Parts: sequence; structure tokens; C-alpha cells
Amino acid sequence: MKQVSFKEAMQYWSKPERIVLVTSCDEEGNPFVMTAGWKMRASFKPPMLAIAVGKNRTTHQNISATGEFVVAVPGADLAKEALDCGMPSSNDQDRFELCGFSKKPGSFVKAPLIEKCIASFECKLYGQVDSGDHTVFVGEVKAAWLNEHPKKPLLIVGEEKGYEALAVEGPYRLGIVNT
Amino acid sequence: MKQVSFKEAMQYWSKPERIVLVTSCDEEGNPFVMTAGWKMRASFKPPMLAIAVGKNRTTHQNISATGEFVVAVPGADLAKEALDCGMPSSNDQDRFELCGFSKKPGSFVKAPLIEKCIASFECKLYGQVDSGDHTVFVGEVKAAWLNEHPKKPLLIVGEEKGYEALAVEGPYRLGIVNT
Repeated sequence: MKQVSFKEAMQYWSKPERIVLVTSCDEEGNPFVMTAGWKMRASFKPPMLAIAVGKNRTTHQNISATGEFVVAVPGADLAKEALDCGMPSSNDQDRFELCGFSKKPGSFVKAPLIEKCIASFECKLYGQVDSGDHTVFVGEVKAAWLNEHPKKPLLIVGEEKGYEALAVEGPYRLGIVNT
Repeated sequence: MKQVSFKEAMQYWSKPERIVLVTSCDEEGNPFVMTAGWKMRASFKPPMLAIAVGKNRTTHQNISATGEFVVAVPGADLAKEALDCGMPSSNDQDRFELCGFSKKPGSFVKAPLIEKCIASFECKLYGQVDSGDHTVFVGEVKAAWLNEHPKKPLLIVGEEKGYEALAVEGPYRLGIVNT
């Protein structure tokens, strides 16, 4: 065992890693969506999810302003869309239009569900904690939604065998497990 | 899209999901290890990791008392060990002995590194937030360690094709991606 840089060790952490889409609204109700890899479950009862969001992100502003967000799980059919929603270059575009996402209203929060995703979780902000250049937002899940047509989950994948890359741009490599 | 229970939607969240081992010490320096699935990155600069730990867990007491923990990434060779360290039934045993884990001291924290793991991250508690029946602990990574012999990462897997199950007990199914 040898001591290495965080970056070097991290390559053994993040592949494979499920990614999600996070939707939110600003105070005027304008919706926004971003791709996020930093998320986890945080409570059984009541059910909660946690996400870490960069402090300079639109999503950070929105959740801070409204206390609401949706976490949606994209499937294999949304590889390109998930890549697009993770690119800072598309930050000022209407990503819902860009990706052909309908904005189905949820039952409890204003942030839209993404109908094309495998599953969506409506979250009300329960607590938050500073984490360096990000903030960890903990959301209590108020409602869960499932697509009637299950798909393979979309993952951040490496170049090893066993995976099929579906959308690649620079260091970002999204794909699925081969069957 | 239909509204479902959290539990039903969650099956599309957690497989595959990387698992980790979390080590900690009590105030007398007695080490403890548990398996955890609820973890994420939380900051680039400085590097941080977040874990969600059940409030009644020994790990929760230890981190609350000492403000330190280690997150270690097990490989395919530690499937049975990871399962054992996740079982409440082994809570009162010396899991390090049970699993043949050496307790290599870290450079910055008293919680031990696990030499057999792929990578280990020494964390100092940076902040925490209540999350229902868990607490989210955010740790700043003070040092990262890598095993010289990389292995395939151990995952919580489903019964779909594409995975090889290596250790199964009740609902817990640990394995790897097939190549």
C-alpha cells in the first residue's frame, strides 16, 4: 500500500458509478436540470436522499431559494442527454428542450419530474451542510415515480471490459453493463 | 409514469452500487469497521467524502466522539468480508480478526487503513447534518492510499445478466461486473 494523490486514488472510486439528473426551479418557477454523480441515500424512515452540488451552480441557487428538488434516474436511452446536461456549455440553454424532456409536474414540489427517466424522487430540503466547494443537500422524499418501461441504469464507466460506452466526451464516459 | 412506494422505486437506484468499508475508533482507540453503501464525493478542493451512518451504529458513536474515519474501497477478493462487516450479528465480534484485516495505522487519523482494500481515504470530520434515522458526516480527505495490486471493485448487484455474484446472504448480494 502506498500513499498517493487523492486524484490517483479516486479512479478506483468512481467507476462504475450511477448518475442522476437533478431538477430544480428558481423563485419564478423556471426549471433547470443538471447531471450529478454525487448522490446517496441518507435515511430509511423517513426516506431521504443527499446530493452534493457545486456552490456556483444554478441548481445550488435554486435549491437554496426554494428548498425543493427532484432526483431522477436516467436509463441507457438517455446517455447523450445526461452528457449534455452535465456540460457547463449548455448551462444557458433550455436543457429540457435540448434533450426533449417533458416537464411533468410532481405532486409535492415545483421542480419537474422527467418522464423519460426510470425513476424520479420528489424531495423537500430537510437539511444541508457545507462541504468545501460544494454543499450537501439532504432531501426528504415526498413521492417516488416509476416509468412503466424499465431500462438499464446509466453509469459512469471506465474502459475495462464488461461495459458498453454509449456517450463519450472528453473525460466523461457514460455507459451500461454488458449482458 | 406512475407514483409508487419509495421502496419500489429504490430497486432502480441501488444496483449496481459501489460499497465501502468505514473504519473508526472509540475514544480509547478501539477500532471498528462496518460496510456502507451510502457514500458520495462531496468536494473537489479540498477533497471531501460524505457518508450516511445510522444513528444507533457503533460507527456513529465513534465518529461523533473522535471526528475521524477512514473510507476504504474493497475489491472482488473481499466479498465475504464485506458481507460479514455489514451484518449486525457480527457487531460485537472483532471484525478485523474475523476478516483477517490488518490494522495499518494511517498518517493523520487513528482509524486504521485496511491494507487489503483497493484504496483507503483518511478523513477528518468537516461537518455533519441530521438526516432522519442517519447522520450525514462530511470528511475532508487528509491522505489517500492505494494498494499496489488493483482489483475489480465490489458492488451491490442485482440478479440481471452482466454480473457475477460473489457473496449472497438474504437480500444482500455482492459481486462484480462480468468480463
